[in-house]
Amino acid sequence: MTENRIPTPSSPAPDVLRCAYMELVVTDLARSRDFYVDVLNLVVTAEDEDVIYLRSMEEFIHHNLVLRQGPEPAVAAFAYRVRSPEELDKAEAFYTELGCPVRRSKDGFLKGIGEAVRVQDPLGFPLEFFYEVDHVERLAWRYDLHTPGTLVRLDHFNQVFPDVPKAVAHMEDLGFRVTEDIQDEEGTTYAAWMRRKPTVHDTAMTGGAGPRMHHVAFATHEKHNILAICDKLGALRLSDAIERGPGRHGVSNAFYLYLRDPDGHRVEIYTQDYYTGDPDNPRVTWDVHDNQRRDWWGNPVVPSWYTEASTVLDLDGNPIPTTERTDSSEMEVTIGADGFSYTRKEDGEDSMPEYKQGEYKLGHQL
Amino acid sequence: MTENRIPTPSSPAPDVLRCAYMELVVTDLARSRDFYVDVLNLVVTAEDEDVIYLRSMEEFIHHNLVLRQGPEPAVAAFAYRVRSPEELDKAEAFYTELGCPVRRSKDGFLKGIGEAVRVQDPLGFPLEFFYEVDHVERLAWRYDLHTPGTLVRLDHFNQVFPDVPKAVAHMEDLGFRVTEDIQDEEGTTYAAWMRRKPTVHDTAMTGGAGPRMHHVAFATHEKHNILAICDKLGALRLSDAIERGPGRHGVSNAFYLYLRDPDGHRVEIYTQDYYTGDPDNPRVTWDVHDNQRRDWWGNPVVPSWYTEASTVLDLDGNPIPTTERTDSSEMEVTIGADGFSYTRKEDGEDSMPEYKQGEYKLGHQL
Amino acid sequence: MTENRIPTPSSPAPDVLRCAYMELVVTDLARSRDFYVDVLNLVVTAEDEDVIYLRSMEEFIHHNLVLRQGPEPAVAAFAYRVRSPEELDKAEAFYTELGCPVRRSKDGFLKGIGEAVRVQDPLGFPLEFFYEVDHVERLAWRYDLHTPGTLVRLDHFNQVFPDVPKAVAHMEDLGFRVTEDIQDEEGTTYAAWMRRKPTVHDTAMTGGAGPRMHHVAFATHEKHNILAICDKLGALRLSDAIERGPGRHGVSNAFYLYLRDPDGHRVEIYTQDYYTGDPDNPRVTWDVHDNQRRDWWGNPVVPSWYTEASTVLDLDGNPIPTTERTDSSEMEVTIGADGFSYTRKEDGEDSMPEYKQGEYKLGHQL
Amino acid sequence: MTENRIPTPSSPAPDVLRCAYMELVVTDLARSRDFYVDVLNLVVTAEDEDVIYLRSMEEFIHHNLVLRQGPEPAVAAFAYRVRSPEELDKAEAFYTELGCPVRRSKDGFLKGIGEAVRVQDPLGFPLEFFYEVDHVERLAWRYDLHTPGTLVRLDHFNQVFPDVPKAVAHMEDLGFRVTEDIQDEEGTTYAAWMRRKPTVHDTAMTGGAGPRMHHVAFATHEKHNILAICDKLGALRLSDAIERGPGRHGVSNAFYLYLRDPDGHRVEIYTQDYYTGDPDNPRVTWDVHDNQRRDWWGNPVVPSWYTEASTVLDLDGNPIPTTERTDSSEMEVTIGADGFSYTRKEDGEDSMPEYKQGEYKLGHQL
Repeated sequence: MTENRIPTPSSPAPDVLRCAYMELVVTDLARSRDFYVDVLNLVVTAEDEDVIYLRSMEEFIHHNLVLRQGPEPAVAAFAYRVRSPEELDKAEAFYTELGCPVRRSKDGFLKGIGEAVRVQDPLGFPLEFFYEVDHVERLAWRYDLHTPGTLVRLDHFNQVFPDVPKAVAHMEDLGFRVTEDIQDEEGTTYAAWMRRKPTVHDTAMTGGAGPRMHHVAFATHEKHNILAICDKLGALRLSDAIERGPGRHGVSNAFYLYLRDPDGHRVEIYTQDYYTGDPDNPRVTWDVHDNQRRDWWGNPVVPSWYTEASTVLDLDGNPIPTTERTDSSEMEVTIGADGFSYTRKEDGEDSMPEYKQGEYKLGHQL
Repeated sequence: MTENRIPTPSSPAPDVLRCAYMELVVTDLARSRDFYVDVLNLVVTAEDEDVIYLRSMEEFIHHNLVLRQGPEPAVAAFAYRVRSPEELDKAEAFYTELGCPVRRSKDGFLKGIGEAVRVQDPLGFPLEFFYEVDHVERLAWRYDLHTPGTLVRLDHFNQVFPDVPKAVAHMEDLGFRVTEDIQDEEGTTYAAWMRRKPTVHDTAMTGGAGPRMHHVAFATHEKHNILAICDKLGALRLSDAIERGPGRHGVSNAFYLYLRDPDGHRVEIYTQDYYTGDPDNPRVTWDVHDNQRRDWWGNPVVPSWYTEASTVLDLDGNPIPTTERTDSSEMEVTIGADGFSYTRKEDGEDSMPEYKQGEYKLGHQL
Repeated sequence: MTENRIPTPSSPAPDVLRCAYMELVVTDLARSRDFYVDVLNLVVTAEDEDVIYLRSMEEFIHHNLVLRQGPEPAVAAFAYRVRSPEELDKAEAFYTELGCPVRRSKDGFLKGIGEAVRVQDPLGFPLEFFYEVDHVERLAWRYDLHTPGTLVRLDHFNQVFPDVPKAVAHMEDLGFRVTEDIQDEEGTTYAAWMRRKPTVHDTAMTGGAGPRMHHVAFATHEKHNILAICDKLGALRLSDAIERGPGRHGVSNAFYLYLRDPDGHRVEIYTQDYYTGDPDNPRVTWDVHDNQRRDWWGNPVVPSWYTEASTVLDLDGNPIPTTERTDSSEMEVTIGADGFSYTRKEDGEDSMPEYKQGEYKLGHQL
Repeated sequence: MTENRIPTPSSPAPDVLRCAYMELVVTDLARSRDFYVDVLNLVVTAEDEDVIYLRSMEEFIHHNLVLRQGPEPAVAAFAYRVRSPEELDKAEAFYTELGCPVRRSKDGFLKGIGEAVRVQDPLGFPLEFFYEVDHVERLAWRYDLHTPGTLVRLDHFNQVFPDVPKAVAHMEDLGFRVTEDIQDEEGTTYAAWMRRKPTVHDTAMTGGAGPRMHHVAFATHEKHNILAICDKLGALRLSDAIERGPGRHGVSNAFYLYLRDPDGHRVEIYTQDYYTGDPDNPRVTWDVHDNQRRDWWGNPVVPSWYTEASTVLDLDGNPIPTTERTDSSEMEVTIGADGFSYTRKEDGEDSMPEYKQGEYKLGHQL
């Protein structure tokens, strides 16, 4: 499956601390501002006519999300913070050795960020690495600013790529560790979760036509905060922004909700996964046919969640063409006409709720 | 629509306090005990080989749910508590005048209950009225017995009947008040919620082939208690018991979850509706095409929820035949091939989430 | 103790639905608005230079709290809604027979309220009875307006009076039922909770110099909403508004918090007591020496909570003089130098937490 | 203040992952089991007549808490997990160079732990370092085992030592980073919080007679889980185990509760601090006179919390003598007769709640 393994550079990988921000291109900045600021209550650190810099309530760096006005919805950067300025040299050498497009800017590519390196990685994704950043007020104690659905942290990215093992091997070269994955009995990998900070992930690879961006995820403190976001969307008659959930993930054990922003970019709201910081943290492998793997309560995954994702841009701002997945499709092997899922492995398909067979079997012939 | 209005008796209606318990016939008592006691943690007040008497954590009367071993799943009684022993005379006279089967037992029909009147009401449902009842310990303060999903009260019943206005008119004769309903622009009523105690309902009428029992609902204190029940079902690999939800209702504004017990009887877990006790409490009428009416977050209702319900028994224990609904079907006018729903009335069908069109439009050709 | 029982009128009592609103006199309307609107997020139904009309998020009547600018902090009315306009005649006759000051206004005493009767009851408290009231939007579904500490209902009043049994007997004449009380082994009653709507109370009588107003209580949906109010007060550097709690009550089993408004009026935030609507609802009597009676977790009651309360006004707006309590003082018999409390009755004072003996024994020599 | 700075070893410090477990000596193992297993629901990994090995619900290593039967209550080890077996060599060299007692065991000192190094550190505390450990089931997904107060992780230790800056400097040599501290205007440090894993702390130093153990802390997912522990203690008539809280910390921003176990060992239950993993994570310094520093809601700290702590043992199991603090006492400068606290710095002592002055000013003449 992973015929063309991306070579491991002899240059050491930069020491990545965590996923730090995503730069999104949006087609109507005012409309996106309504969504991220008025509905989701992300905090505006700075803004001008073309760009809005947003952060979560417990963040002390300049931003976790950048909205940039542009002609088509896309993702311009998945940005990671590294441990020190020196790590930028490593990033530059690492990707240069891989033959990737690499750009380095002394002043950074965006307001609030100092020196930074941007690359188009071997998988095709636009990444940024930076250390220097403006500090801003950590609003953790500012409960006067909290809302029922307060977002407290950027938690992770999620990327779509056709060949998951190939992507994972490369990310391991970059120092990421796999915490969980989804496989079938033949060893096909459908998705994998990888971390630097000791949560379940800083990014995940989801099998599919790629490179594309699947979602960006923000954390809340408690589950009721996520429910409050749904309630508010209902009150605003924007419930159509809810794509999937809320629910409990099997993978990660977190409580989740998936939204679609006005451009269709997918945003997850997420809370309460577990500590993964030990080197021997046990990897959890889920059977793709286990219908509790993606929703612990057995609620089916809506097809769009599998099929739709955001375009990513190269360093010149051009859309990166995608490659189709050739491995089996998770959607087809689980909820499609020929797929199957089970609640209890020993009972097989008989253990699927009849109530939901419409959704699992009939519902999704798109 | 309501051509054959049930006449209003000249006898005064009994003064009903609240829905008090339901008597369910189950086909495998041990299996049902697993579900209601080991999974849902209802409290066993008493039990023998054939019957289990269960109550919720804040109840002080003998039981809120009775499980009786029998040959086919069914409902033997919807039991209401009345304000005093004298109200039994009124109940007897009220239904006798209506020509209904009426039985009165000095010693009650079930353990723990004193004198009681059972009737098959003009809609065909088996009702019980009682006042005398054994008091048992109210376990409200017994937090050592609480579980993450503790059920604290019986909240309401829900009945299926073909002609909702006819059923409502009769229930109003019995002293119930409508708090909310679902209608269309032609005035067809699809469902109505009616109360005695000052919550949104003690029972509701759901349009469909009937008389049948749609569900019985227990209340929790908080929303996380309901999520905990889902999490536990997942851990026990019983997530197939989850039929619909969890979610936020439009109607009632409550947070909800629908389960199916081992016999298919539907149980709702419910929390946080609102006070309705004033005589001029405003009735809320929902448009049947509003896709937030049954789920405030716009998640589609699974077809089984519309179509499946439990048989009810007459006073001799025989299944009561059902009559089909002739008014429009809520499922067909909303999620069926010819139906339509909207998120924003002014945007019409365009305001339906594309992500869910499979579920709304394709998914449910049963 | 109750030597001078207030006679039971031959006139029937009005049928009271529920506590409906309190009229508070405040000395700095703008400062009080900050507290009730900006901090507690009650909703402004109407306001002018002298009066602000506030309601909770699930209310449909015009107001639950009225703030009126005045020279000294005081309570001008404890207002109850009755079941119909006809009940006003009963109220008028009931209190007239008792020889109380009674005033009736065709147009009501306050904006939004129709015909009303105000009395100074035999205990000295200013009460209002009304049925007609302007309906306003019930904001239950307006989650876009919700805050982390949203107040959803007016729950109850709490009154201070020297002779609790005397007050209780009179309130029973008015149709209230006792749900819980605090007594000692000699039968002294220290406090009693009484209801019309089926919660633990619409009002309570707390033993002490009176008539005075102890507190007015609003309900939230969940416990975290109450914690969020504390967090917000901390963020605003207004934590000195927190007098007692948050905690779990023994009496009522509710989760609670006591605040003091800028004039010292006490406001409780309260959630999750239990259904009490059956006529034979079991009364719970607590031992005054049980240190879990007022805080289930055994945290001591701060002395000011026992000693401070708001002046109440007669129908001309003059402060009503108070009478001292002659029965034993709950504070003195429990946390004072000669008092005692226990965690486990069988272990007596030995079961008091040493960690808190400063608070229980030394702390409160006021 | 820190005249006798402990020298920085030339040997590199071991790479500590996280606080991993505490070994407690208890005087009645069965009684302690009741507390930790039956009340707090920690999971028993293994036990025999003399020792019980307990873990939290999301842990995958053998234990987070060891209870050992012994003659006097004490702490035998604060155990940290290191990144690899090789780090044990570093630990051995690091403390040997410091002239500390050092013991190394190939088979570990306790069941479930492999090779380990125990030292009495220069501050006098018994520490253990280990990497090898038996893996056990991570019960994160076992919601069937969850209770309302489920403890999911060991979060941190807290140590008492007279000279906080001296202790901090040494812990920094060991690779810990300060996240928050409490100081006064003269620069006296009263307490400091230090981390390895990216939470607010793996351990803290609290100023006082030491070396002693102040508390060990376990995390829950949500705040209601902590409240549920209080409710359960009330139901079991064990509320005297509650020493302080629940409340919101200023320092750490976490929600907290302090319990005392049957031997008086202090256990904190803790949830929702913030991510601290960036090297430039902003340190938060609190003014010792800010009455929201230890409780964001301004509730006073009970004196025992300042004065009482557990004895720690040397490597032979003998109690380590303590040294008094000579710097100012936090209790005396804040709640004592000559101390002062403020809610709003600009308002000084006038901003202290009068309701609580008994507790702040009179209450604590121990």
